[in-house]
Amino acid sequence: MIRAAVAGGTGYAGAEIIRLLSGHPQVQIAAITSRQFAGQPFDRAFPSMAGRVSVVCEEMNPERLGRAADVVFLALPHKIPMALAPGLLSSGCKVIDLSADFRFRDPALYEAAYQPHTAKDLLRESVYGLCEVYTEEIRTARIVGNPGCYPTSVLLPLVPLVKAGLLDLESIVADSKSGVSGAGRSPSLTVHFCEVAESFKAYKVAVHRHNPEMEMVLSREAGRSVTMTFVPHLVPMSRGMLSTIYARPSAAVSVEAVRDCIAACYSDRPFVRLRPAGMPPDTLHVRGTNYCDIGVVSDERNRRLILMSAIDNVGKGAAGQAVQNMNLMFGLPETTGLDQVPHAL
Amino acid sequence: MIRAAVAGGTGYAGAEIIRLLSGHPQVQIAAITSRQFAGQPFDRAFPSMAGRVSVVCEEMNPERLGRAADVVFLALPHKIPMALAPGLLSSGCKVIDLSADFRFRDPALYEAAYQPHTAKDLLRESVYGLCEVYTEEIRTARIVGNPGCYPTSVLLPLVPLVKAGLLDLESIVADSKSGVSGAGRSPSLTVHFCEVAESFKAYKVAVHRHNPEMEMVLSREAGRSVTMTFVPHLVPMSRGMLSTIYARPSAAVSVEAVRDCIAACYSDRPFVRLRPAGMPPDTLHVRGTNYCDIGVVSDERNRRLILMSAIDNVGKGAAGQAVQNMNLMFGLPETTGLDQVPHAL
Amino acid sequence: MIRAAVAGGTGYAGAEIIRLLSGHPQVQIAAITSRQFAGQPFDRAFPSMAGRVSVVCEEMNPERLGRAADVVFLALPHKIPMALAPGLLSSGCKVIDLSADFRFRDPALYEAAYQPHTAKDLLRESVYGLCEVYTEEIRTARIVGNPGCYPTSVLLPLVPLVKAGLLDLESIVADSKSGVSGAGRSPSLTVHFCEVAESFKAYKVAVHRHNPEMEMVLSREAGRSVTMTFVPHLVPMSRGMLSTIYARPSAAVSVEAVRDCIAACYSDRPFVRLRPAGMPPDTLHVRGTNYCDIGVVSDERNRRLILMSAIDNVGKGAAGQAVQNMNLMFGLPETTGLDQVPHAL
Amino acid sequence: MIRAAVAGGTGYAGAEIIRLLSGHPQVQIAAITSRQFAGQPFDRAFPSMAGRVSVVCEEMNPERLGRAADVVFLALPHKIPMALAPGLLSSGCKVIDLSADFRFRDPALYEAAYQPHTAKDLLRESVYGLCEVYTEEIRTARIVGNPGCYPTSVLLPLVPLVKAGLLDLESIVADSKSGVSGAGRSPSLTVHFCEVAESFKAYKVAVHRHNPEMEMVLSREAGRSVTMTFVPHLVPMSRGMLSTIYARPSAAVSVEAVRDCIAACYSDRPFVRLRPAGMPPDTLHVRGTNYCDIGVVSDERNRRLILMSAIDNVGKGAAGQAVQNMNLMFGLPETTGLDQVPHAL
Repeated sequence: MIRAAVAGGTGYAGAEIIRLLSGHPQVQIAAITSRQFAGQPFDRAFPSMAGRVSVVCEEMNPERLGRAADVVFLALPHKIPMALAPGLLSSGCKVIDLSADFRFRDPALYEAAYQPHTAKDLLRESVYGLCEVYTEEIRTARIVGNPGCYPTSVLLPLVPLVKAGLLDLESIVADSKSGVSGAGRSPSLTVHFCEVAESFKAYKVAVHRHNPEMEMVLSREAGRSVTMTFVPHLVPMSRGMLSTIYARPSAAVSVEAVRDCIAACYSDRPFVRLRPAGMPPDTLHVRGTNYCDIGVVSDERNRRLILMSAIDNVGKGAAGQAVQNMNLMFGLPETTGLDQVPHAL
Repeated sequence: MIRAAVAGGTGYAGAEIIRLLSGHPQVQIAAITSRQFAGQPFDRAFPSMAGRVSVVCEEMNPERLGRAADVVFLALPHKIPMALAPGLLSSGCKVIDLSADFRFRDPALYEAAYQPHTAKDLLRESVYGLCEVYTEEIRTARIVGNPGCYPTSVLLPLVPLVKAGLLDLESIVADSKSGVSGAGRSPSLTVHFCEVAESFKAYKVAVHRHNPEMEMVLSREAGRSVTMTFVPHLVPMSRGMLSTIYARPSAAVSVEAVRDCIAACYSDRPFVRLRPAGMPPDTLHVRGTNYCDIGVVSDERNRRLILMSAIDNVGKGAAGQAVQNMNLMFGLPETTGLDQVPHAL
Repeated sequence: MIRAAVAGGTGYAGAEIIRLLSGHPQVQIAAITSRQFAGQPFDRAFPSMAGRVSVVCEEMNPERLGRAADVVFLALPHKIPMALAPGLLSSGCKVIDLSADFRFRDPALYEAAYQPHTAKDLLRESVYGLCEVYTEEIRTARIVGNPGCYPTSVLLPLVPLVKAGLLDLESIVADSKSGVSGAGRSPSLTVHFCEVAESFKAYKVAVHRHNPEMEMVLSREAGRSVTMTFVPHLVPMSRGMLSTIYARPSAAVSVEAVRDCIAACYSDRPFVRLRPAGMPPDTLHVRGTNYCDIGVVSDERNRRLILMSAIDNVGKGAAGQAVQNMNLMFGLPETTGLDQVPHAL
Repeated sequence: MIRAAVAGGTGYAGAEIIRLLSGHPQVQIAAITSRQFAGQPFDRAFPSMAGRVSVVCEEMNPERLGRAADVVFLALPHKIPMALAPGLLSSGCKVIDLSADFRFRDPALYEAAYQPHTAKDLLRESVYGLCEVYTEEIRTARIVGNPGCYPTSVLLPLVPLVKAGLLDLESIVADSKSGVSGAGRSPSLTVHFCEVAESFKAYKVAVHRHNPEMEMVLSREAGRSVTMTFVPHLVPMSRGMLSTIYARPSAAVSVEAVRDCIAACYSDRPFVRLRPAGMPPDTLHVRGTNYCDIGVVSDERNRRLILMSAIDNVGKGAAGQAVQNMNLMFGLPETTGLDQVPHAL
């Protein structure tokens, strides 16, 4: 059994990791940390799991976590993970970090978007945990930077096409839409029910910090510097993310060729589903799952491709992918503990 | 392996049964019938299950179902099941009917609320499938009438108290609130998003057909005729049901004694969870599950008990309980296939 | 023109008062106070009103308000209004207080539910602002305690029947359901979109502070002490409140007689609408308005009456009634500024 | 008083026209037609307006309408208006058609997207009713084709920039998001609450029939043929529409110059509000109103402009603009009857 600890277990991503680990046949939950609920049973924070998760939350104690766990999930705000990770790794733990702290190999990129980095050495070693793209690196990694939700939804459809040289790299625009859980569980006016219901709006227009993360991966896969326009929006729903991506093909290419390229790239990957023509992806179809549903349309009149991808921002966009990363890092089938049948509604 | 067929598989209850059976380790899905989707793969109706359920829907053919299946779930409108059940039973199938057709032992009660009954003989044999109450009868039943969602939510907290003689039987009022999926998947103005959002209202006030169903069970357990006031309401949410039940205690009784009575009755039953004092049940905590969360408050000033129960109307209120009934009828642990860890949101 | 000031203008009730006053033909908005938005234009807090309300919010300064305004609406937390009201009245202002501070004539009742009262003298003078019931007292009042939202929805259907002696006064149960705006605009986990969507639950079961307020009015109208059971619930919608009220008739009475009693009581009152038989009130029908829609059903089998009433908790339940009170206090027709045609959706 | 008739008054657009006309000081409602509710009072279909609109719905009778009304609003499915309009005009009525039948001057464009046109002569005369752009033509028109909701939201921010030659006309992409009421009031699976809640998806990707309508206007204003990519999405909310529009500037241009261009174009128009920098438009801010809120961001890194516009799809996107057109056609100030103060929530 893998002994797993979840730091920051009472946020939405942390709680979802705990849900998934509770049903994972190879894992036992060794510890849950929570500043707000330290000393209280986890199900006080999430009563849905009463009778299912009996762990009592504790204060963060890195030494204790290092001894108690084989893997630690860090579901904490940026900046804290870079302080914790070196110690945890020294204790022999593997680390899966859900913040941005270990997503960038180049510290300058991180520091431009976030803050000074205090564990730069580890950046060279850490692997960007986009499971379907960096599978082999993840298998042997000690530390993984779990991708942001927006980058996951935008990169999964784009990477195969960029790798295959099918896109005009100056032409990429991603218009993404996220459910409210993406903003976290901390109360604020932004997530107040009455401000969200009947509201749809863009935010951080062209300045969101997930933008450099996407460009880093696209540039790596293209072998040259790529920039793109990215606009996130807030949708009045709890979970789910849809990205609509616009790009010009680099040359005349049929929609079938585009679909084939994506299909070939993910042919043996269980969590990517290509939707039939005429049936665009829908966040409802992936709610509570680790799936990424992808659709492709060619706007011939305007010589533009339109890619759509739907994920659950808390699932494949955070906790699901984190558990998938754990599976890869521990040599398990990547679907272990992630194969619940999706709900119909 | 149990070979299970689902008739009416593309309504919400049917689809949820299919979801649960797909993950059930002792079941293979032998057939799905659907008038609307006959000839099409099931995931055309519910794309969330693409890659997980590969059955093609078929027209209803009772002979074929009778041969192909060990158990048939009937998720069909009232009146059709009573025509199908006798033939299915003769083929050696067990039958779990989600309509009202086999819920009433007394045909007069059924006929007063619904229509003439054409399989009255079977009524004597059929068992009311409220799993926590009629467990032993269910284990040996060939045919089970799966309870309505409202009766499930109202009876689970009430039955222990009625059995124990703790309630004034003239005083019971149940004010229930249901998510929209209770109205089924067929389009109508009632379930139009724009008519539901920002709408809360009562309907079928004191004349809902689940009322006689509740009174039948309460009368049976009380050993005398019991009537009660029942008012259902529609809540702007997809899944979930909360019943708030008001009753006078038959004599002075402490809230602890009431809680103890309920707790004792369900002490070894995995799907009933008694909520701690001061933390009333919430539909969000049981969404997508087979749980029934119960809360108890005593309004001493007015000498009234207030019982609250939360279920998922599609889960414990329909499909979950149907699968639980199947488990009991086939000698399996009742949690088999029903033990997914609940979502945090 | 009436010069009106709104203290606490950037909460939901305050902002709705400002919306109504902006369209009121006899009012000019003299001042808006807001701790959080002091120094900023009001439409920074509520951009919907950009171009329509150009007032800049200011810090609370009672002397300035007293000079600048003929009437001050206090949309502030309990305890603050009792400190402000005496000074405002001395300045010659009229005061309409939306907190509980001036709802109780008997300080003991207030103090049992809230805290020590520091302006007890004013309690003798203040009028409970349930416009359809205490019309004449309101016309001549200097200070009005605007009713709570729950009491407004519960009392409007009950008062005529209690006055007429039609109810068994031991038998009253009110099961009320409120939209989320009732919890105010301050962020908290309770109003987080992800905790509200798909959630329905009771809270403060039988201990809500609006309970004594209702009992105070019922007792006054009945001429004897009345208590009742009251359970509020939270509905996943922004605005709206529905109360379902159960009571035994004091003697055999037809449903028509009950309807007639209510109809007669409100025959000349524009904001109470009696719904036709079979068409229960719906919060969607009163959204954004000052209406109270009432429905009546008789559950003959159980000798119980079921009353339903729908209001907008921010409208008739708070701001709308506050403006209606102002109209009465200033000798205007009570519909002035409140007669917008309701939305269809 | 203008005598106005509304044909198709019990759909969402028709009902909103009736709401607006009921509060319009220069209008009396002469007739409402409704196939479904003929013979019944209008408030049977929309109980929110009980006590406010007392008209009884009638069957469509063009002769009667022609005599009874000075202006007829046609809120009917495509194809019916082109059969009715000639007769209504002959009777001396003005006609405001909310279908696509009179939006295209060139019948070939209409017929490519819809069906054969049977009143081609009238197309030459009819005016495209985008009030802020074709103001003068509208003032003297007998018949107006009221714009689609998507074109209204996309064209209002784009037209000033296209006219000023500021955009690369090959580069335009509009990613639009609509509330559910855009799909109309007829029940279907698409608008079923349980299929909409927690669902976000694109539909009619790059093939929506509003696309040629937008291109027609852009081409007219640019003086050359313009095409654009257009992808509509469905948002889980009742009312509201947000369009995010991406385009390359034709030459280096500051974001201030872009804002100034839009501001100048609409400087004296009351229903267009330019949002301050950093505060993108939000559908909640325009709910129930005739406003169009516009935001502008420059993505310098990618040499792209991002325009955002929020409208209420039922308001400015349909009924509000229809009433605004009536005001212009009858020489009234364009805000008459449209100046309700917007709600705060």
